[in-house]
Amino acid sequence: MNVETREKLYEGKAKIVYETNRPDLIIQYFKDDATAFNALKKGTILGKGVINNRMSAALFEVLERAGVPTHYLGTLSDREMLCRRLDIIKIEMIARNVVAGSLAKRTGLEEGTIIKQPIVELYYKSDPLGDPMLNDDHVRMLRLATPAELIWMKRMTLRINAILQPHLARRGLLLVDFKLEFGRRRFRRDMGGVEEAYQEVYRRLVPAGA
Amino acid sequence: MNVETREKLYEGKAKIVYETNRPDLIIQYFKDDATAFNALKKGTILGKGVINNRMSAALFEVLERAGVPTHYLGTLSDREMLCRRLDIIKIEMIARNVVAGSLAKRTGLEEGTIIKQPIVELYYKSDPLGDPMLNDDHVRMLRLATPAELIWMKRMTLRINAILQPHLARRGLLLVDFKLEFGRRRFRRDMGGVEEAYQEVYRRLVPAGA
Repeated sequence: MNVETREKLYEGKAKIVYETNRPDLIIQYFKDDATAFNALKKGTILGKGVINNRMSAALFEVLERAGVPTHYLGTLSDREMLCRRLDIIKIEMIARNVVAGSLAKRTGLEEGTIIKQPIVELYYKSDPLGDPMLNDDHVRMLRLATPAELIWMKRMTLRINAILQPHLARRGLLLVDFKLEFGRRRFRRDMGGVEEAYQEVYRRLVPAGA
Repeated sequence: MNVETREKLYEGKAKIVYETNRPDLIIQYFKDDATAFNALKKGTILGKGVINNRMSAALFEVLERAGVPTHYLGTLSDREMLCRRLDIIKIEMIARNVVAGSLAKRTGLEEGTIIKQPIVELYYKSDPLGDPMLNDDHVRMLRLATPAELIWMKRMTLRINAILQPHLARRGLLLVDFKLEFGRRRFRRDMGGVEEAYQEVYRRLVPAGA
């Protein structure tokens, strides 16, 4: 079954997310945003959307090879990425190896200070509240994630840091900090109504092309 | 040995802290601050300093009876409290039973929402930084407390909440939230120089009045 673009789910500055004909899949379209930059590759000018798509794909492939489950499935074109559709957990996880930005303000430590043991911060993914920092108790109170999920997310954040940091260092790049978001695999009941359930049973029982 | 007031160590809006002739003890003097209120008791007007001293003493005594170690030793006068001199840990611990103030802003929950399982927040005790919220990783990075100290402080904060909440509820008072600060007992080496060490050895070897 070919994956085809359907309704637009979301549009931000850098990308558009589309539903597809498959309830468990989405397509991300990477835009050239207002502050677009261009890069030259083999004599061709590449737009920011193309670069973002390729860079993201390259990093997700590094993670997949290291056994980290991600939503990434592959690229469909220069600007399109096929991903699993997940239920987003409303927490942004930040890993930090070097003091920068808000961490300098929060701690009074100088920008550029190396953090020997990487640190993880949680932020509430909420535009109206301005993405405030949270602690574990807030996450529990707001029921954003179960305690087991939170432990898993923290471990995974540090594991991803431990994969990406040396990968980038070998390429002469310093991984200062990065943000991760996590999602849960969608339950069958979220994949549609009765019709989809019938279709799924049909697909499992009836050979393709029958 | 009588405890006598010596140099002023600190003066804030509500109190003055004095060194004493004993390196391990301080005296807190409770002031009537600018926004002073008065309360009537047995026909006498009591100033805010007197009330603060008595209220603080009453709460510390509740905690002491419940086996919680505090810096409180007793009151010396209407406005004076004798306390152990500690090395302050630069973390403010907040326990919360009801959503109020910054927690409402941070979470979007309505003021007055009851929190079923009390939550604890950590803040960096730093005037220039404006007392920002911290997580456990920040505490480790800034070396404000050891992991064991932090676990102990969190447990103690919840324990104090579990003592004070019913104590106040029985008196018709709702414990919304409160702030705690913790200190370490001072090491002998912090109690002064060589002279003090000699004096201490002398006191231990020579009977009083000899």
